[in-house]
Formats: sequence, C-alpha cells, structure tokens
Amino acid sequence: MRPMIQRPRGTRDFGPAEMAKRSQVERAMRDACHRFGFGEVVTPTFETAELFTLRSGPGIVDEMYVFKDKGDREMALRPEITASVMRFFVNDLSTQPRPLKLYYVGNCFRYENPQSGRYREFFQIGAELIGSKNPETDAEVIALAVNILRSAGLEDFVVRIGHIGILKSMVKDEIKDEKVAADVLRLLDKEDFDAMGDLFDARALPRNLFDKIAAYADVKGDITVLNNLDQTEATEHIKEVFDVLKIYGIEDCQVDLGIVRGLDYYSGMVFEIDAPKLGAEKQVLGGGSYTLSELFGGEPVFSTGFAIGIDRMMLAIEAEKPVEVPPALDAYVVPAKDDMRKYAFGMVARLRSQGLKADVDLMRRNISKNLKYASSVGARFAVIVGKEEMAKRSVMLRDMKSGEQTLVLADEVGSEIAKRIG
Amino acid sequence: MRPMIQRPRGTRDFGPAEMAKRSQVERAMRDACHRFGFGEVVTPTFETAELFTLRSGPGIVDEMYVFKDKGDREMALRPEITASVMRFFVNDLSTQPRPLKLYYVGNCFRYENPQSGRYREFFQIGAELIGSKNPETDAEVIALAVNILRSAGLEDFVVRIGHIGILKSMVKDEIKDEKVAADVLRLLDKEDFDAMGDLFDARALPRNLFDKIAAYADVKGDITVLNNLDQTEATEHIKEVFDVLKIYGIEDCQVDLGIVRGLDYYSGMVFEIDAPKLGAEKQVLGGGSYTLSELFGGEPVFSTGFAIGIDRMMLAIEAEKPVEVPPALDAYVVPAKDDMRKYAFGMVARLRSQGLKADVDLMRRNISKNLKYASSVGARFAVIVGKEEMAKRSVMLRDMKSGEQTLVLADEVGSEIAKRIG
Repeated sequence: MRPMIQRPRGTRDFGPAEMAKRSQVERAMRDACHRFGFGEVVTPTFETAELFTLRSGPGIVDEMYVFKDKGDREMALRPEITASVMRFFVNDLSTQPRPLKLYYVGNCFRYENPQSGRYREFFQIGAELIGSKNPETDAEVIALAVNILRSAGLEDFVVRIGHIGILKSMVKDEIKDEKVAADVLRLLDKEDFDAMGDLFDARALPRNLFDKIAAYADVKGDITVLNNLDQTEATEHIKEVFDVLKIYGIEDCQVDLGIVRGLDYYSGMVFEIDAPKLGAEKQVLGGGSYTLSELFGGEPVFSTGFAIGIDRMMLAIEAEKPVEVPPALDAYVVPAKDDMRKYAFGMVARLRSQGLKADVDLMRRNISKNLKYASSVGARFAVIVGKEEMAKRSVMLRDMKSGEQTLVLADEVGSEIAKRIG
Repeated sequence: MRPMIQRPRGTRDFGPAEMAKRSQVERAMRDACHRFGFGEVVTPTFETAELFTLRSGPGIVDEMYVFKDKGDREMALRPEITASVMRFFVNDLSTQPRPLKLYYVGNCFRYENPQSGRYREFFQIGAELIGSKNPETDAEVIALAVNILRSAGLEDFVVRIGHIGILKSMVKDEIKDEKVAADVLRLLDKEDFDAMGDLFDARALPRNLFDKIAAYADVKGDITVLNNLDQTEATEHIKEVFDVLKIYGIEDCQVDLGIVRGLDYYSGMVFEIDAPKLGAEKQVLGGGSYTLSELFGGEPVFSTGFAIGIDRMMLAIEAEKPVEVPPALDAYVVPAKDDMRKYAFGMVARLRSQGLKADVDLMRRNISKNLKYASSVGARFAVIVGKEEMAKRSVMLRDMKSGEQTLVLADEVGSEIAKRIG
C-alpha cells in the first residue's frame, strides 16, 4: 500500500458527530444575530496581504499564509475578518443607510507552530456595527455578544468593559517617541508591568507616569469603581453603556480599565468576555469601537465590533455540559427478506417525504446485522418490513432505545414516529 | 484619502440580501442531506498539494493556489473536496460501520483567469457514500442529488446517467499505449469527435474502433435505449439503478453513455445534472462511483459521490423565479421623543426575547427619519413609542407595507406581530 496522506499539521477534520454539535450551536448563534437585526456577509478567504498589514502592522506578515496571485500580487489567507468586512464596506456599502449591522461566520488562518487549543485554521463568528459610536450602539454590540453566547448554550462567562481613550491619551501625551509609546501600550495589553517598568527605567521616563498608568489600568470591579475616578467623557460613556445594558437585561458586567487590545485603531469602548471554566486561556471574545475604514481608502466612520473564537467557545460550552443533539436518524428501514427490498425503498422514500431523517439497508444484510448497523449509526427507530407484517399492511416498529416492538399500519408509521419523537 | 484597497480579482463579497437567499437555500440542502442519513464533515481549507495531484494528475498544479508550509511542504488551497473527504476516511474513519454517508458544504479555489460565472473562490455542496457499489447505493446517491436540488427550489433539471466501464475497457483493451488511451478518453469527455478522429488518423488506429466508440458514446435517451445494446453487467446495473430511482419517485432520468468524467478513478456509474435554463454552461452537478482511497494509502473501497456547484445552481434557481426570503426585520422600534428612548430599548429587548427579529433607533433620529430607515432596511412593522400611547400602556403598530397604524397594548405587541407575520 502507498504511504498514508496526512492532514496538514495544526488543522482538523470534523466528523458527523462533532459537526452535528457545531452546526446546532452555529445555527443558534446566527439566529441571535438575526434577532438583533444583523445581516450576514461573506468575504473572500484570501485578500491582498496589504489589507492585513494596514490593519495590524507589518509584523502580521510572519503570522500569515502568504502566496502570489497570477498578477504577482501578494495574497494572504485571512488572519481575521474585520478587515475584510471594512474593506467591503469601503468598496460597496458606504452609501447604505446607517447604522449598518453586519455579522460573519468563517475560517481564519495563522501561520505558527500549533499549540494546545490553537490551530492553524480556526473559526470565528463576529459582528460589526458601522456608522455610530453612541453609548447605545456600544451597548447594542455588547448585548449581541452576550446573546450569541447565551444562545450557544454558554452560561458561565464574565463581560469586562473598559475604555481605551484615557490610557491612550495619557501615554501619547506624555511619551513623545511614538515607538516607545506603542511599546508601552503593547506591554499594558499583556499586563506585563515588570517589562514596562524596565522600559521606563531604560528610557528614563517619569516614575509617576508609570504609577498613574498602572493605577488606572488596575481599575476593575462593578460600575461603582468609576465613582472613585475623575468624571471624564470616557467614564460617563461607560456609565451610559452600563445603563442601556441594564435595560437590555444584562446586569452583571464588570468594569476593567486595563483592557488595551493590541491594535492601534481601537479608540473608545473596549470589551472582552472570559469563560472562567477554561482556566488560563479563558478569553473567548474581544471587541471594541474603532475607526478603520480610512486606512482602506474610505471616509473615517465609527464602528463597534467583536470576534468570538468558536473553537474555544465550544470547549467552554462542553466544559459546562455536553451539547445534546437529536439522533442522526429517526428511522432505519430493514427488509426482513430479499423480496421485501423494493417495498423497503418505497417506505424510506415515504418517511423522507414526511420530513423524517430515514435510511434503509443498502448492503443486502440480514436482520440482525441491520439492527446492529441501525444502532451504531444512532437510529431512534427501526422499521422492520416482513412478509407476515405486510400481509396485515403493517410493519414492525422497533424502539432502538427500549427494544420494544409494536405492529403499526404501514400507512401510519411516519406519523407514529413523528408523534413519538415529538 | 488613501487609495481604496480592492477585493482580489475573481473573488466576491456577498452582502446581507444575497446571503439571506444563499443561506436559506443552503439550509434546505443540508436538511435534504440529513433526511437521507448523510452526516456533515468539515476538512481543512488547504491540504498537501500531493493529495490533489494524486487524485487529478500533475496538471492540476497549474490550476491551484500553492504555497509553502512552515515545514517547507507544498500546500494547496483545495480545488475540490472529495479528495479531502477520502483522505479523512483513510486517516480516521475506515473502521466505521459501512456504508458511511458523508456530505460537505465548502469553498474551493481555482487559480485561473476569471471568466463569466467562474470564480477563483467558489462554493460546492457534495456527498460521498463510502463502502458499496450496489445499484441501490448508486440510486441512493442520485436520489439525494435530486432531492437536494428540489429542496433548493430548482424545478427544471435533467438527470443523465451513464456507465464508464464499457467505454473504458473498449478503449484500454484496444489501444495499448496508455497515454493515447487517456487522450482518447479526454477527448470523449469533451465530446470533441473531430480531434478524436485526427488522433486516430495520426496514430493509425482502426477506424472501426472509432465508429464503435462514437456509436456507444451516442447512446442517449430514456431507459429503453439500452434494449438495443448487448446485455452486459453495465447495462443491467443501469437498469437496476433506474428501477430503484422509480421506487424513489424519480422517473424522468435519461441514459447517456457518452458521460466520461475527466478523472481516471471513476469506475462504474457516472451521472450529470443540467439546468437547461442556464444555456451553454448548464451543468450544475457531476458524480459517479469510484475507488480513490487506495491512492491515499488506504484499502480500496468503492464509493459513489457527487458535487454540486452552488454558484451556478443559484443562477439556475433565480432564472426560474426569484428566491423569496422573509423580511430582515419583523419590527423596528421608534421612540417618538428623547425621553421615550429607554422605554424603547426595553421594548426591543422584549421583542427579541420573544424570538422576533427586532431593532431600535440607535442614532437618536426623529420619527420620520426613523421610519425611512425602517423602510430601507426592510422592517415589516414599526413600533412607535409615544407619550400619549404610553399613557394608555400602548404603542402604535405601523404596518410598513400598507402604512396602516393600530394602537396595541405594549404587553401584547410581540404576540400581535407574531400573529400577523404568521
């Protein structure tokens, strides 16, 4: 035999049992988007590499799958989808009535050594609300994120909301060297205060600035922690966001002014959601308000968005309780003898036309092998078509869980199964 | 302003209106797969390039997006998904009970100059039934294909069924040079009999073989055309496939012994489906029975499968009649004055929790601008929250189609809308 061809490292195959769970969860998440008035967009899987370096800086190139197009242009498999949505907006949607509420579900790619829980191809659901930065649009986007996670079945998660504005202006006002300012923000994002202290020493930056930044970034807790701060546009904005969230029935959010988000174009509210059951790698969502369209050749437009890592979210859901899906088959039709075979094909066709998930012996097996197959593929009922039963215009309906068998009129077996599975 | 970043040539962005149609059709197609007992699989978007050259020959490399992995291995964006499904089968699923019934929905890539209706990234739905080559498994796969197209809403299509066995053995028995035999089959696939004649002349192949091949490839029509041929294993197989299809309620299939399918690993039944309304580029589906697993390092296993081009199928459906989708929004809540705003947020939260697709003014606009927005985003109803109405614990429900307005109790507006949209 030839050597086996392997799946590329860091990628995955998903079989039917896992896909049944994932697509049930995905449907629930999409329905949440639609209830919030968000419409789906699909953009190409690859884009010009420039789109992503404009968004994330040249460093991203090392983390992307890059290849040449026919026209010798550099293309990249998308590492994220927000940039594509904003490019689509700038190209074709900028004259649409605002706010534009868009969501996406798709695969993304990162070119790195695979680690536990991090894959080279991974899946995201995300949303962008384009055209506004009111507290109510920020709240709407956070509420959508919460509703997606709840609809997906996740119960235990923590929403942390901050505001990047003050920290950014604090750093940029007082550190004139742009590179150093960016480094400080990057270390803040990582919460690496030791390295930040070293940087302050190396650059002889004022120690009281360090203390001011560290104290601000450490403001965490319920909404009342804001009462200890000077009242600014940012604190008032966050309070209003919390007000609207409360009306939306979302009451247990946390303030966290230490959220920085790596990327430069975040400008106002930022938020993250953790699923504590995941342990160290607990963040399942990141988002915030930003302006990005002008980078891609459009007018500056305020937007708020987020992306949820579906893979990590599935782990979080399953850490709470297994996702339950309906049986793969409602009925498996078994001809007792060869001369019942054609009748069995007619029966399965009828069950399917009644909307049931039904299958039939295609391997010309005997009854006991067929029942074994029916059980192994997870059929809820077996419908046994035999000579004696047919003489009574009936079939034997076997409950594959209990083993109980009932004689049912052939014309009624579909409705009988529908009744029993509810 | 910066120059606008463009979408890569030959790719597409899909906006909410188009995605609403595509995902409604996709759901209907997936449901058909589940009714037939097929389970979904998802495989990586890129694979080792070798997987596809093994399946389709080295020529495919020029038509693929190829790039290097970290380990300097050559990877390719998948040009099709059957090879990946069979690789997955060989790697992980070969001990599963058979038949294995798998389907996929996914994007594929071809590296070529874009033409009308052909894109560099395109979408397929397909299925593979692994582990059998009975006439009933072939019929089951054809029946699934027909049911997918019917569920998608396509009415006018033609199923043509052939058998590659006889033609292949005819050519290979009589033309000993393998390359020449392959060229003959390739020209047959294209129905290019002129070029085939030239090849016969150039190679001094017997003219009566040409006539025999051409006559056989020209056998087309209803099932009775087989009565004029010698009875062989192939003709009997096709007749049995037609018998089972008839029991399945699929009666109008055509015989077409000229179907060759380009690829070498097809071994028995082959079939294609055309949508005549598409004109010259009318084929929406190709499939057949094959053995492929041994190429990827597994035991030889008979399989039958097909792939449907979703893009072309959408064109065919829309050529018959526009796909109708429900309104994007059931309700859009409009606060008449600023002090009604919070009440409006509460109202939209309630409507959403009742399962309605609902939105609310997030831009602090006046009533007439809000109604214009509601209309432009396709809301079915507007819910106007005003001071006078609130005094009566009521809201004004405006039918956005008729313009008719009704005073409805605030507590009942959700159920009233649900009732009216059915």
